Amino acid sequence: MKKPAITRMPIHELLASRWSGRAFDAAKPVDHDQVITLLEAARWAPSCYGDQPWRFLVWNKSTDMAAWQQAFDCLAPGNQVWVKDAPLLLLTTADTLFNHNGQPNRWGQHDTGAAAENLCLQAEAMGMMAHQMGGFDADKARAIFNVPERYIPMAMVAVGFPADPATFSPEVRERETAPRKRRELGELFFAGAWDKPII
Amino acid sequence: MKKPAITRMPIHELLASRWSGRAFDAAKPVDHDQVITLLEAARWAPSCYGDQPWRFLVWNKSTDMAAWQQAFDCLAPGNQVWVKDAPLLLLTTADTLFNHNGQPNRWGQHDTGAAAENLCLQAEAMGMMAHQMGGFDADKARAIFNVPERYIPMAMVAVGFPADPATFSPEVRERETAPRKRRELGELFFAGAWDKPII
Repeated sequence: MKKPAITRMPIHELLASRWSGRAFDAAKPVDHDQVITLLEAARWAPSCYGDQPWRFLVWNKSTDMAAWQQAFDCLAPGNQVWVKDAPLLLLTTADTLFNHNGQPNRWGQHDTGAAAENLCLQAEAMGMMAHQMGGFDADKARAIFNVPERYIPMAMVAVGFPADPATFSPEVRERETAPRKRRELGELFFAGAWDKPII
Repeated sequence: MKKPAITRMPIHELLASRWSGRAFDAAKPVDHDQVITLLEAARWAPSCYGDQPWRFLVWNKSTDMAAWQQAFDCLAPGNQVWVKDAPLLLLTTADTLFNHNGQPNRWGQHDTGAAAENLCLQAEAMGMMAHQMGGFDADKARAIFNVPERYIPMAMVAVGFPADPATFSPEVRERETAPRKRRELGELFFAGAWDKPII
């Protein structure tokens, strides 16, 4: 499923083509080298003071089904419906403190978002899809996987290869082919003064 | 200056080549279409509930020098030293509330980080550099530019074309050619359980 962004000016193809699909191919696993490639992309995101405040937990269904299932069980039921076919799950977490001085890092969550986006873009580059979710039980995930207090669970991410559209049920087809939408540029971006639309 | 990321597995060239340089070419302005292209890339980042919680203020030196200067004056002195040559400045802000129900959006900063990373990657794709900074007076920026309370100033971003390395002073050369560094993969990414290195 290609659903490139509709833009006023052309943007880089990788940025235009990434989108958060849900129809994964359960028969196509993700191997260790592919996991490392995704994580390398996240690793090289920028961060305040170069702190790299992100820590990701990774569960690969094909090498540790039991742990993958534990992670899956943290998801909201509405997400479980489609994540069941995703071979790879992650939990992204954000450090609340700077590594170099132990003081609060107010960019921890921001920078974790950048690292996660790099991972999603790398997935797209590999013909895969990555879909981040806020719908999960963060307290449960913290308890099961011993996430230390100083890290905040941000998102779970489902990753895998897209299913063949020929296999879509009518329901899935409607969901996966729905148009991507964004606000107008002028609602998000201001020229020099607040609420002055850039265009 | 090319300083591609050193990775265990090859990652997409756009992700590998983006880095946060400081030596901008003061003689190369950024035009309106280029600004819109950068913002389109940010606009199409993913967000929780598709809320798009980011709002960016944009100052273009070539069209509004006075406002650019006001934004520049919010920067920490250590950043002003090199940002002076950047033709474009931005302030990224994160919504604290969801648009659809007015409830707290705990992913506002995270998603703003993703949108900002898209902008940085698009800059790289256009032969430009984008460098985010936490070193600025957020209260001052809020006051001068009337940023509403519900939005949190996250980063200022300097954007422009890179200067010709032949023009670097010895000091700038040392700074711009310093190797990029990241933590080991196993310090950031865990396999199935906290602190269990992925590699």
